[in-house]
Amino acid sequence: MTPACLIDEAKFKRNVARVATHVASQGCQLRPHVKTLKSVEAARYYAPPGTPITVSTLAEARYFLAAGYRDILYAVVVTPNKLPEVASLIADDALLTVMVDSMAGARALAQAWQSPHPLNVAIEIDVDGHRAGIQPDASALPGLAALLTNSDKLRFHGLVAHAGASYGSFTAAARRNMAQQEVARMRQAVQHLADHDISCQMVSIGSTPTALEDVDRAGITEIRAGVYATFDCVMAGLGVCQVDDIALSVLTSVIGTQAHKGQVLIDAGWMALSRDTGTAGTTFDCGYGLVCDAKGQLLDGWYVAQTNQEHGIICHRDGKQIDPDIFGFGQLLRILPVHACATASQFAQYTVVDAHQQPQAVWSRVSGW
Amino acid sequence: MTPACLIDEAKFKRNVARVATHVASQGCQLRPHVKTLKSVEAARYYAPPGTPITVSTLAEARYFLAAGYRDILYAVVVTPNKLPEVASLIADDALLTVMVDSMAGARALAQAWQSPHPLNVAIEIDVDGHRAGIQPDASALPGLAALLTNSDKLRFHGLVAHAGASYGSFTAAARRNMAQQEVARMRQAVQHLADHDISCQMVSIGSTPTALEDVDRAGITEIRAGVYATFDCVMAGLGVCQVDDIALSVLTSVIGTQAHKGQVLIDAGWMALSRDTGTAGTTFDCGYGLVCDAKGQLLDGWYVAQTNQEHGIICHRDGKQIDPDIFGFGQLLRILPVHACATASQFAQYTVVDAHQQPQAVWSRVSGW
Repeated sequence: MTPACLIDEAKFKRNVARVATHVASQGCQLRPHVKTLKSVEAARYYAPPGTPITVSTLAEARYFLAAGYRDILYAVVVTPNKLPEVASLIADDALLTVMVDSMAGARALAQAWQSPHPLNVAIEIDVDGHRAGIQPDASALPGLAALLTNSDKLRFHGLVAHAGASYGSFTAAARRNMAQQEVARMRQAVQHLADHDISCQMVSIGSTPTALEDVDRAGITEIRAGVYATFDCVMAGLGVCQVDDIALSVLTSVIGTQAHKGQVLIDAGWMALSRDTGTAGTTFDCGYGLVCDAKGQLLDGWYVAQTNQEHGIICHRDGKQIDPDIFGFGQLLRILPVHACATASQFAQYTVVDAHQQPQAVWSRVSGW
Repeated sequence: MTPACLIDEAKFKRNVARVATHVASQGCQLRPHVKTLKSVEAARYYAPPGTPITVSTLAEARYFLAAGYRDILYAVVVTPNKLPEVASLIADDALLTVMVDSMAGARALAQAWQSPHPLNVAIEIDVDGHRAGIQPDASALPGLAALLTNSDKLRFHGLVAHAGASYGSFTAAARRNMAQQEVARMRQAVQHLADHDISCQMVSIGSTPTALEDVDRAGITEIRAGVYATFDCVMAGLGVCQVDDIALSVLTSVIGTQAHKGQVLIDAGWMALSRDTGTAGTTFDCGYGLVCDAKGQLLDGWYVAQTNQEHGIICHRDGKQIDPDIFGFGQLLRILPVHACATASQFAQYTVVDAHQQPQAVWSRVSGW
């Protein structure tokens, strides 16, 4: 039945191997972010149980813990109302690390943490002005680390940064610069703490664009990345992968054509594709996704131009006429996602297909918080 | 724990009563669209079991059928790969009506329908050039209805239209015109079929903006609408409701501030709020949602300006300074959704709160297809 979410097994495995090989060559531990697919069956390929992982929700932590993943970094600043579940995860044997990036956050944590188990806490460093984190040279940084170090309930574990600004790096040179900046700012933060006799066990950086760069990683203990296992149109637009590497797609049916408008209607709207338009405003604008035939062959120039809840509208970039052999009623198409994390999140499971488009497995997914 | 999805019980009931009273005064049956909340507990207030309903997926049909809803309109053109589930629903006693809007669609249906139960089929009419449907004066319309009428496996049930273009009607006059146009074009289609001795049992129109207009509905048997039970910023922007009527919100925690950027970070990103920016480009641009305090009081000028997966970034329209009493670490806020259908779909359940913000109930939700 359509819509459904497919994973191309061969492309998925190729992407996973590419990043694993590269990160190993950089001399770092890979700590995959499981937030794209949130699937234990998928994770077995890029993070066999026992591998350290990164999660974006405590629901992921719970689900992956049950599948044998103990070493978990929860990479969103933790709030007091989540601490009972954090304590429960640790009581259930998770080696969970949480993050703070402010004195207010650390004080709230120290005050609220009641568990007999000490809590591993990392400090988030801002390496690119992207979103969150404390500046590497902030005068408050040593005091923040000292507060964690001196608390008998908390344990200072190290530093975490995410170079989210790399999503705006559209050339190889820009990505390389961002990867070097990510490393340099983290070293600066490590040195800043060392000047105050505070050492960092974990120095964790990462984003898919910077992870794939070849730079000197001395001083970095681990690299995080997530979307690389499937990639998506945003990554293809950045030049981090080819469109042909995109391993996730949404299987959909043609439900009509409005020939006078050059529009094909499909049964994948934003409920299936998500509302993400992450390539808008770039030279590689894919709307809500690129259109392939049922075998996954790209139909050049066709993209999802509009979405309603259960309707998608496909148009051609240059107004090409609708070929009824391709876009006939009930025909199957596959849509490559703009942003795989967002599209994957619209589904409860994935169907894994082989090179002959035959279903090989169904992979589960966890949702919620 | 945050993020969580709240429904303000008093506002919800007020909205529901407003539309029920209005549609009754228009002399029409209300066939609520359950696609916004997809919740049987919510539906009991605006569509007690037995009431005809509209669904956007067969998963909704299955879930509502189990709760006692038999008369169900599946308001997306049906594809052949969904017919086994359609047949299964009908075998389980659903009075299900599906839609087509083309000869190709009707032929595919007639060919594929194998069940011993005849299938109720409605024709979708295009009343506004919005998306799908056949034109009321299309020469193909009578032939399409005749194909359904003459098939021994199908049963022609009537006409359905959705004035989706009403979402672009920003004045009362424009909405009134659209409501009149919706009725007029449907009457034209009914007359077109009557000229060929084909009668329509169901003449179904609707969209929340047009449903709330006071126009002559003669010839219309039923009105569909969905988002009205909660409303959202899109509806407030159109003037269909007030911001204070919005009954759905996302409870979130402050996880940090970047004072030099005038930014407050919250733990509701697009995974909680959705990526919908349906008010963008209008004079009522709410970004990813309007910000209220924990009691639901609007914090004037504050809105969610950016979202990542689990991070939202709040800014003030005029760059107002961040008040630490409101935006301190761990403080609770509530975000009013841009598009309630999209935001609600990010959650597996809703917490219903009374006027004192006390939880009264948890309502379930169905997802998937």
